[in-house]
Amino acid sequence: MRRTPLHLVSILLLLHSTADGAEPYREKLTSTELGLHMDEWKVSNYDILSKSKPPFSVKKITLHGGKQEGVDLITVDNGAIKLTVIPTRGMGLWQVEAGQVRLGWNSPVKEVVHPKFINLQTRGGLGWLEGFNECLVRCGLEWAGHPGKDKFLNNVGEEAEMDLTLHGKIANLPASEVEVLIDRLPPYRIRVRGRVDERMFYGPKLELWTEISTEPGSNAFRIADTLRNAGALDQEFQIIYHANFGAPLLEQGAQLVAPVKRVTPFNGHAAKFVNRYGTYEGPTKGFIEQVYCLHPLADGKNRTIFLLRNANGDRAVSLGFSTDQLPYVTLWKNTNAGEEGYVTGVEPGTGFPYNRRLERLAGRVPKLAAGASREFSIEFNIYTNRNDVQKVSEQIAAIQAGRQPQMDAEPLKVE
Amino acid sequence: MRRTPLHLVSILLLLHSTADGAEPYREKLTSTELGLHMDEWKVSNYDILSKSKPPFSVKKITLHGGKQEGVDLITVDNGAIKLTVIPTRGMGLWQVEAGQVRLGWNSPVKEVVHPKFINLQTRGGLGWLEGFNECLVRCGLEWAGHPGKDKFLNNVGEEAEMDLTLHGKIANLPASEVEVLIDRLPPYRIRVRGRVDERMFYGPKLELWTEISTEPGSNAFRIADTLRNAGALDQEFQIIYHANFGAPLLEQGAQLVAPVKRVTPFNGHAAKFVNRYGTYEGPTKGFIEQVYCLHPLADGKNRTIFLLRNANGDRAVSLGFSTDQLPYVTLWKNTNAGEEGYVTGVEPGTGFPYNRRLERLAGRVPKLAAGASREFSIEFNIYTNRNDVQKVSEQIAAIQAGRQPQMDAEPLKVE
Amino acid sequence: MRRTPLHLVSILLLLHSTADGAEPYREKLTSTELGLHMDEWKVSNYDILSKSKPPFSVKKITLHGGKQEGVDLITVDNGAIKLTVIPTRGMGLWQVEAGQVRLGWNSPVKEVVHPKFINLQTRGGLGWLEGFNECLVRCGLEWAGHPGKDKFLNNVGEEAEMDLTLHGKIANLPASEVEVLIDRLPPYRIRVRGRVDERMFYGPKLELWTEISTEPGSNAFRIADTLRNAGALDQEFQIIYHANFGAPLLEQGAQLVAPVKRVTPFNGHAAKFVNRYGTYEGPTKGFIEQVYCLHPLADGKNRTIFLLRNANGDRAVSLGFSTDQLPYVTLWKNTNAGEEGYVTGVEPGTGFPYNRRLERLAGRVPKLAAGASREFSIEFNIYTNRNDVQKVSEQIAAIQAGRQPQMDAEPLKVE
Repeated sequence: MRRTPLHLVSILLLLHSTADGAEPYREKLTSTELGLHMDEWKVSNYDILSKSKPPFSVKKITLHGGKQEGVDLITVDNGAIKLTVIPTRGMGLWQVEAGQVRLGWNSPVKEVVHPKFINLQTRGGLGWLEGFNECLVRCGLEWAGHPGKDKFLNNVGEEAEMDLTLHGKIANLPASEVEVLIDRLPPYRIRVRGRVDERMFYGPKLELWTEISTEPGSNAFRIADTLRNAGALDQEFQIIYHANFGAPLLEQGAQLVAPVKRVTPFNGHAAKFVNRYGTYEGPTKGFIEQVYCLHPLADGKNRTIFLLRNANGDRAVSLGFSTDQLPYVTLWKNTNAGEEGYVTGVEPGTGFPYNRRLERLAGRVPKLAAGASREFSIEFNIYTNRNDVQKVSEQIAAIQAGRQPQMDAEPLKVE
Repeated sequence: MRRTPLHLVSILLLLHSTADGAEPYREKLTSTELGLHMDEWKVSNYDILSKSKPPFSVKKITLHGGKQEGVDLITVDNGAIKLTVIPTRGMGLWQVEAGQVRLGWNSPVKEVVHPKFINLQTRGGLGWLEGFNECLVRCGLEWAGHPGKDKFLNNVGEEAEMDLTLHGKIANLPASEVEVLIDRLPPYRIRVRGRVDERMFYGPKLELWTEISTEPGSNAFRIADTLRNAGALDQEFQIIYHANFGAPLLEQGAQLVAPVKRVTPFNGHAAKFVNRYGTYEGPTKGFIEQVYCLHPLADGKNRTIFLLRNANGDRAVSLGFSTDQLPYVTLWKNTNAGEEGYVTGVEPGTGFPYNRRLERLAGRVPKLAAGASREFSIEFNIYTNRNDVQKVSEQIAAIQAGRQPQMDAEPLKVE
Repeated sequence: MRRTPLHLVSILLLLHSTADGAEPYREKLTSTELGLHMDEWKVSNYDILSKSKPPFSVKKITLHGGKQEGVDLITVDNGAIKLTVIPTRGMGLWQVEAGQVRLGWNSPVKEVVHPKFINLQTRGGLGWLEGFNECLVRCGLEWAGHPGKDKFLNNVGEEAEMDLTLHGKIANLPASEVEVLIDRLPPYRIRVRGRVDERMFYGPKLELWTEISTEPGSNAFRIADTLRNAGALDQEFQIIYHANFGAPLLEQGAQLVAPVKRVTPFNGHAAKFVNRYGTYEGPTKGFIEQVYCLHPLADGKNRTIFLLRNANGDRAVSLGFSTDQLPYVTLWKNTNAGEEGYVTGVEPGTGFPYNRRLERLAGRVPKLAAGASREFSIEFNIYTNRNDVQKVSEQIAAIQAGRQPQMDAEPLKVE
């Protein structure tokens, strides 16, 4: 704990002492309100549960050197999987280690880059790519898609034009409040929560409370975010959950298994390969990204499941979510050579990653009223045997229910 | 004190030991020349005066967490009011607490944002708004007004074009030298001084020594800055003192009381409301800023006073300054809903906040010769009863001396 | 050593204990792989050699205050000269102190500016000039020359346009790995090595291992860099070694002595003075830079020597290098008034500093194949008496061998 005034320590101790069985364990790791930032910190089941089982730990470190000087990392080890979150980069999920399955990928960006070294406006608005190596990175909040011009209201209330940058700002903003909560009663859910603010004068006042949680011993974890418009006026927003997977899950013959109503190529290049959109190639030097806009089908409760499985069908990861919250999924295939980034993205969102100007024309830019909130959650499950992969594939087939998806030969007409 | 070589400690001790009654107490808190940066520090009347009265203290802290990681704050508590200065943000004045009056405002920007998280070029040059929440922020030094293109001489000596950004760079530059001085003799004036440099190769070599000072027990404080051209060539400059006030001083019926020769709306929108330019509305959702260009009247010594008073006329703040130094005042009315920023700016300057290109055409961009300096000072007084507000209002009326201001129905002709 | 996990300390101790006479002493000062960053550190001959002679030391400090908060400096004192390297600024060489000769210059930029305070895109792409004060700064790696538009392949594999910024990014990137190596056997060469990465997704994957080295008691030092393309595809690159010298070496009557085949003015302004390109004026207020493109001659092994000598011919510095590695030299004359920067640059490179688009047209933008490397080295020698200056001048004359250089009256035709 760095330079924390003594009265804050007292407050923190008080917070702990009031906790009983009904109250979760709670620790603030970063707080701009309290002037608090812990450089290193750790807690384990031994510290907070009367019985020593199940074993788990949560650990905070600060990275040093190069472009990662000062970057915070929080690792939750639930005994089965290890999740590493990056508070300094918008609470993104760096990677998940789960035995033989690792969620994440080997990006050519080797460091966990501090936002102070990122200029989103470089390279015609592609500066975001200088820090991109997360397993799950949120795109948003004021905009989430491709760079390019869009209009906005400036300080004198006039319509002006600005350059949007790739995938928005949220992934390069540090969390203002970070806390760890652990239930003291079974199943002892462990939560890492962080608030990332996209606030400015004469602009959005968006607050995103992110949460990533898991249970000891589980192969699953959950994202559960709440986005709030803290301004006095209606506010447009966009959010895309850019989940990225590389080898060994991704390999030649790996497949996306998902219930879809319609598949549309993002551009002319992707259109050439739309008929095999759900199947992956091995690392292919010079591969150009192929992107598909998917309209998911869902069950009676508007839940859907997207599954990425390996060629053998004995390893997989699934994303379960509500199509009310996240009605669109972008599939990003980038099976380039390993050095360039062999990776695929499965990206549920409130829209597709076209420039906001185009998304608005297509009616995919929602608004939040003053003071209003929206929730977004995604359940991730990791499968490590054929039987489990088979079972979830059957669930997906049940949602598809034999309906043929519409396969578009041409990109969405934009403009 | 962080990582200060021992010989520097000796130098500092020497500085102290040479101080006697005639020499002020002096402490360097930041010095790029000495490689010095203090994370935390405090001094009070008990430490430096033989008698324990009057009570006062000066305290330095470093903020942590989110976008304020590493931001320095210095708070002067003179026993009557508390001034908080931000060395990391160009020696801006964050707020002044004075019992029931607070100078400052509730910006939608909640953190004291470190410049490393600010890109002035975003949003068409409006990135400055991502950190804007100060009570007093300096605009300048190479330019101080609205974004837009302007010409400059580039590295090969040719006229080139660059994008100016809103209100210039000075508020997002950290001070290179920071020191606290306290007179050992009555009235024990307390000074926080800091040098902010706008220096570059093939560009300006401007150094601004800022000073904010007050006396124990006083309701007043003073800005006294010296701007120096450290280059070998003439140098254009602009400076605007953007002083910002919100509730409770600002409220429906609050008034600007000021001696003016001429009032000109900044744009067509402001022109519609020019006849009530000096009166404020309550928080109004969707209010569009109204800006007025004021030409102040002054007394025989070219001193003028601008007063912002509440509706009741029993709370107020005044700015006293020389129209030789600061011949123009911009009045910025932004009585929007609280969540959007309910605030007004009273902004003495060397010009108005039009883009520098337009200000140059209007003859309002001064130059400093090589090695030359200019001084700028503003006296702030806080009033907490009707009698005092009345008295200063009478002073202002005496300067106006019954002269009718010219009220322009149209904006200044620009270009 | 800051926040280094204990197992890393063990690794470091092991590294040391395995070292014998044959293995150099080796210490990691920064490592993103190990999560290591030392704030302060020092080693001297007493620590690592059995005999106490020759005396030398290597010292690491971290700067504080203003725009240099957090900047690393490493100073090698070899007993004769002191070299100061800036790991935080791309391993640039800040200055060399050598008794009465100092390599370096007095820039109007007074601080060693942390990249977090630099925005390369400001001022029409001239933001680099806000941090420029090094004795040797590398320009590159993706581009190295003047700002302006150039094409590139974007994320969807299409040709897009981007704004290049002056002299590229490398000087404003912090080194990811930094280490000091010292031979345990004569001549006890001392090496400061650092790896600076210009890596991104959908962009270059260039790694530059820099090395600066010297021997105890020597007046010479050596740059020896290795550039590697870590991507899977061919990659363009540019590198220019921007070596800068001011007073007292630079003075009225100082001369560049160099074997040249051809001298071409960079632009029309320089063309006017091409006939005295090798002679310097004293500080001249308002001097506009004069730049010359030089094609060096070399000896039978393709080695050449460029010498900058004072007016008296009793102080000088030389750069020796291979024209296979660095076939072009840019001479930058900027004998402006001291406050503006009185300086000349002698700049061996893979090309001239025209915008990359123009350099490509001229065939001066090399490519590195996937996995391929290139080496660049320059030997610097400092001379402090007439005799030594005379001897190296004769070496240069021998390379010139009486051949008359082609003196172009017009700039290179670009476009």
